[in-house]
Amino acid sequence: MPFKGFRVRFATTNKGKLREISLLLSEYSLEVEAVEAEKLEIQDDEIIRIAEYAASDLAGRLGYPVAVEDSGLHIEALNGFPGPYSSYIYRSIGLKGVLKLLEGVEDRRGFFESVVAYAEPDGRVRSFRGIAWGWISQAARGTGGFGFDPIFIPEEGDGRTFAEMTLEEKNRLSHRGRAMRSFGEWITSTQA
Amino acid sequence: MPFKGFRVRFATTNKGKLREISLLLSEYSLEVEAVEAEKLEIQDDEIIRIAEYAASDLAGRLGYPVAVEDSGLHIEALNGFPGPYSSYIYRSIGLKGVLKLLEGVEDRRGFFESVVAYAEPDGRVRSFRGIAWGWISQAARGTGGFGFDPIFIPEEGDGRTFAEMTLEEKNRLSHRGRAMRSFGEWITSTQA
Repeated sequence: MPFKGFRVRFATTNKGKLREISLLLSEYSLEVEAVEAEKLEIQDDEIIRIAEYAASDLAGRLGYPVAVEDSGLHIEALNGFPGPYSSYIYRSIGLKGVLKLLEGVEDRRGFFESVVAYAEPDGRVRSFRGIAWGWISQAARGTGGFGFDPIFIPEEGDGRTFAEMTLEEKNRLSHRGRAMRSFGEWITSTQA
Repeated sequence: MPFKGFRVRFATTNKGKLREISLLLSEYSLEVEAVEAEKLEIQDDEIIRIAEYAASDLAGRLGYPVAVEDSGLHIEALNGFPGPYSSYIYRSIGLKGVLKLLEGVEDRRGFFESVVAYAEPDGRVRSFRGIAWGWISQAARGTGGFGFDPIFIPEEGDGRTFAEMTLEEKNRLSHRGRAMRSFGEWITSTQA
């Protein structure tokens, strides 16, 4: 019997993220349902550990399988900053702050990382990672996406920032697109 | 019967912190024992919630009362950055990065915050907060203290940074000194 699709519960309150995830998983006939419950995010240098901890904790509390997506921008010349704290750093110093830190810096390489962690109430957790390499632009450009998208130029693109792309274009190249496709392939294969 | 002193268990691996805490609590005849167990640090904009969560979790796991100290530097012009993630931000962009973010910025006001959370295995937790206002120096100065001390000038001092002071001088004015004295007074009064 062919796979008919089902619903995946995602714990996120970020609307930009939810839009991207829904479009990406619709290609696998997966419907995304946003879970409102608050995630427990730990401090850790590794995003994968933050995502896995949050997913496991949530699945245990809710009693059903749940997915979590966590992501961050890592800038080489800044030793990986803003990394796992990208969201706080975006809210505090913003795009302007990150651009200022890179004034006069030649090496503007960095990568976006996305981790999807899927946990079941029995404690099993599985995660999927996606990376997009690129560099930090000289100035913010574009109004699409969210977070640090206006200052990130993916190396597999045509020079535009993530924020200058349509959702479909960004999803094709992005860290989140890659992580979600791995997750989508795995979950449909296990449920078929 | 006069208070005879006893031992307080502190969960910290930061040697600079431990040195300050031991000296501060010795004034209350309290002996500090470092607990090696790993703290669970959550992500939160409020340091008090991070400290209370870590202390409660640890006391529950260890089965005895334990204290945790968490601290951070909040810079007004940067919307509180580096705040609760001061340790990661110190390790990634360092003093140099913070000074660069403030280049050309007139308002260099900020404060250091310290929270001591003391938890018991039954779930009770009590916390003590200390604040030291001041401003960010134009350049790093001094070799004492740790973390952001070389760029912080407390307003109640004489213009030197925390890193240019002796441990005794810093403790008298510092956020950690204030939080520890509140804690020391409370714990000796409950145990007397």
